[in-house]
Amino acid sequence: MDPRTDTELMQKIHDLCYPRSVAVIGASDNVLKWGSFLLINLLSGKFAGPAYPINPKARKVLGRECYPNLAACPGPVDLVFITLPQPKVLEAIAECAAKGVKNVVVITSGYSETGAEGARFEQELVAAVRAAGMRLLGPNTMGMMSTHQKLYCTGSNSVPPKGAISMISQSGNLGAQVMTWAEEQNVGINKFFGTGNEADLNCTDLLNYLAYDESTRAILLYVEGVEDGQAFLRAARAASERKPVVLLKSGRTDIGAKAAASHTGAMSGSFAVFEGAMRQAGAIVVRQPMDLIDGAAGSYLPMPKGRRVAIVTLGGGWGVVGSDLCRENGLKLPPVPESVIAELDKMLPSFWSRQNPLDLVGQINPEIYCRALEEVVKNDAFDSVLTLGLVGSSSFVAGTMRSANEVAPETVTPEMVQQVALMTGEIEKNVREEIVRLIKTYGKPIVNVALNRNPQILLPVGDDFVVSYSTPEKAVRILAGMTAHQYWRAANGLS
Amino acid sequence: MDPRTDTELMQKIHDLCYPRSVAVIGASDNVLKWGSFLLINLLSGKFAGPAYPINPKARKVLGRECYPNLAACPGPVDLVFITLPQPKVLEAIAECAAKGVKNVVVITSGYSETGAEGARFEQELVAAVRAAGMRLLGPNTMGMMSTHQKLYCTGSNSVPPKGAISMISQSGNLGAQVMTWAEEQNVGINKFFGTGNEADLNCTDLLNYLAYDESTRAILLYVEGVEDGQAFLRAARAASERKPVVLLKSGRTDIGAKAAASHTGAMSGSFAVFEGAMRQAGAIVVRQPMDLIDGAAGSYLPMPKGRRVAIVTLGGGWGVVGSDLCRENGLKLPPVPESVIAELDKMLPSFWSRQNPLDLVGQINPEIYCRALEEVVKNDAFDSVLTLGLVGSSSFVAGTMRSANEVAPETVTPEMVQQVALMTGEIEKNVREEIVRLIKTYGKPIVNVALNRNPQILLPVGDDFVVSYSTPEKAVRILAGMTAHQYWRAANGLS
Repeated sequence: MDPRTDTELMQKIHDLCYPRSVAVIGASDNVLKWGSFLLINLLSGKFAGPAYPINPKARKVLGRECYPNLAACPGPVDLVFITLPQPKVLEAIAECAAKGVKNVVVITSGYSETGAEGARFEQELVAAVRAAGMRLLGPNTMGMMSTHQKLYCTGSNSVPPKGAISMISQSGNLGAQVMTWAEEQNVGINKFFGTGNEADLNCTDLLNYLAYDESTRAILLYVEGVEDGQAFLRAARAASERKPVVLLKSGRTDIGAKAAASHTGAMSGSFAVFEGAMRQAGAIVVRQPMDLIDGAAGSYLPMPKGRRVAIVTLGGGWGVVGSDLCRENGLKLPPVPESVIAELDKMLPSFWSRQNPLDLVGQINPEIYCRALEEVVKNDAFDSVLTLGLVGSSSFVAGTMRSANEVAPETVTPEMVQQVALMTGEIEKNVREEIVRLIKTYGKPIVNVALNRNPQILLPVGDDFVVSYSTPEKAVRILAGMTAHQYWRAANGLS
Repeated sequence: MDPRTDTELMQKIHDLCYPRSVAVIGASDNVLKWGSFLLINLLSGKFAGPAYPINPKARKVLGRECYPNLAACPGPVDLVFITLPQPKVLEAIAECAAKGVKNVVVITSGYSETGAEGARFEQELVAAVRAAGMRLLGPNTMGMMSTHQKLYCTGSNSVPPKGAISMISQSGNLGAQVMTWAEEQNVGINKFFGTGNEADLNCTDLLNYLAYDESTRAILLYVEGVEDGQAFLRAARAASERKPVVLLKSGRTDIGAKAAASHTGAMSGSFAVFEGAMRQAGAIVVRQPMDLIDGAAGSYLPMPKGRRVAIVTLGGGWGVVGSDLCRENGLKLPPVPESVIAELDKMLPSFWSRQNPLDLVGQINPEIYCRALEEVVKNDAFDSVLTLGLVGSSSFVAGTMRSANEVAPETVTPEMVQQVALMTGEIEKNVREEIVRLIKTYGKPIVNVALNRNPQILLPVGDDFVVSYSTPEKAVRILAGMTAHQYWRAANGLS
């Protein structure tokens, strides 16, 4: 069944992501409380509509007018975050129902994760929410984000840039950390859901929504266990047909599964079976948390049509390391075609290796470097290019120039430092632009490894990006994942 | 044969690491030349003795008095770096011989890496060096460091802190990048050698030296290929008996080996055989460049006596992820002993899982956290502890407080921000100190995962360190490597 036929559910999730107004019930000035830091992050993110603090005991919270209850709010309230102690949550739900709230996010814990009694409270909670025509994210969730709405409402202070990657996480703290990495590495985020106990909305529902969400380019999933495996698989497949789905499943091993069961109460089942099924559904399955964000960045590149990689490097050692990693990750390094060798012979010293990896033997001339890139990317022998070269090198030069100015201020003047910085910055900008041009012209991915101090993965070039990893192992793992996904697409008649 | 019996060689390498004075032949003000940036880095590192620029065409280089030749230098010169074009190098060697120089580092390329003619030049070079009683590092090397001497003399501008880790690298640019990571992540470096073409001193010689170098706590090796495999294995074994040897071997695969052959000319042989032999020799074999620096940091911990890990976490999701990773890396998570459960029952909410991983269900009370750590570390059921908890959390709190001050400056004043920063800083300091105390008291490693924005692996506590990784996958990989090494030690009758 096409999930879009459940229009009511899809509309509710849409409302959850695009509320016109929000309220935090349990708002507080006490910065040690959830009702405080959730609101701090919401206000700090500059949410694009009214954000009402609700607390009967306060006139003001964080300097904003505070309302004793939802009814007192001057306008409608679409979305409510509840941080009250568990025994008070049902009262708040009643308030939400009376106010005509569309969705609630219950941060509060003390539900099914604590045992049988908590599970009963959770059933009552869901019943009350649904009876009022609302839907629920949580309980026991870290919160959610919808960055295009400037809705940053999690317990974590990370503010990733606005972008096209969405994430569903069955662990709040793991999800929050991925958002922190996204912020650090300039990977733009669209929507983030910490699903908590999934008493109502679950990761399958949200995955179905994101599959058809035009503004989402790739989906990250952290999953510990799902109740309806078949429905989840169908959702993963439908989503994978439309965009990359990068999945970290935990509870892969017996002890991991036991830990997952005690963490969320979900049954995680056999990972081998689950992983096989997920790969068949087209998902890109990863095993390390950081791979999620690395994989997401890969979605900014065209998919490789096959596994044949050209490595272009300024340093021989990196070529060797990259070769091993490619091979160990199922990628191939075909020989360099004679025509490419003939072209490069015109530019490189006579002793260059004429092999793949193409070691440019330290030729830092940007024209030679870009010509070499174009020669391989345009050649039918290669499906993708991995390059360790000029992008990122300007920070090295800048460091040396600063040191030179310190040790010899009269020889290497501040003006010279600035001049060189401008020059290398300009070179690097040109190379970035050229990489983007080559990607667009030939429709093949060029993955950069920037061996520098800059941890950003997405380096902006106008509205485009150069995708640049801090280590060759990251770049190769992601390229291998993309390649596998593209083989799945081809095997399933997708473009 | 004990390598120390070759006292002449060992003394020469010692002289290489501890020169009283150095010179750079080919020194230049042109910041695009090796003779410039090598000298910049040398001066910027504040080498602890005279550093003479040599260039017959300049009166001053980088503001320092420049000498036309070595003979003109006012004092003795122990170590000479040569950056001249290849045809001029032999003349420089003759100068070195006449001056009584002990060792030369030849940066210049154009030797065996370029083909048969270059190989002949290399033979002549070595013959000239050895005839004068000198030894040679290189040619075609990025340079070397000896940080306790403040000798930072590579082509790369990284200045890692002074420390106890030494590295031998058969790729200059890979080695330089590891040094940059070391600097970023606060991993102190002792000695670094880019071995270049290894025309004279090779990685086996240097490994033999470092094995007995009291100031080196762990050795990092990047190896593409060695000529005398048996000698290298003997050196690796002798070194592993004394300290951890972390090895990245490239050319593991057929295409990697081909790339290595064209890069250094070395034959790399079968990796499976090599890896097996290296493991038998006690080396910790890794597969990704970043693992080198992660592994080095692990040497600041006691070795785990076995594979039984306790995970202590403030967040359930991280416990699940950590469990899977432990299992996949050959580590065990035994159940929590009754006595530990009884102690923790007194402190934790009734619904805590009573399982390993010990999920402290968000209890951020540092006393509870430290008590839980002590309960597991002191228990015979566990050989090591992996913890994702309070160390690193203060940066999250600080971010929230800064945001709170921005959105509500009158409610959350700058004084409050500072007060909380002091408080959380104090808590984190206490926890760090407690971790170091527990490690020393019980002689077991406690490996921290700090989910924050701080990339430092070695967090100082007085003269000690908390070892703290930025992802659980790093922490688990290193713990697994240490455990395997300890099993090797036990199997070989070493403590």
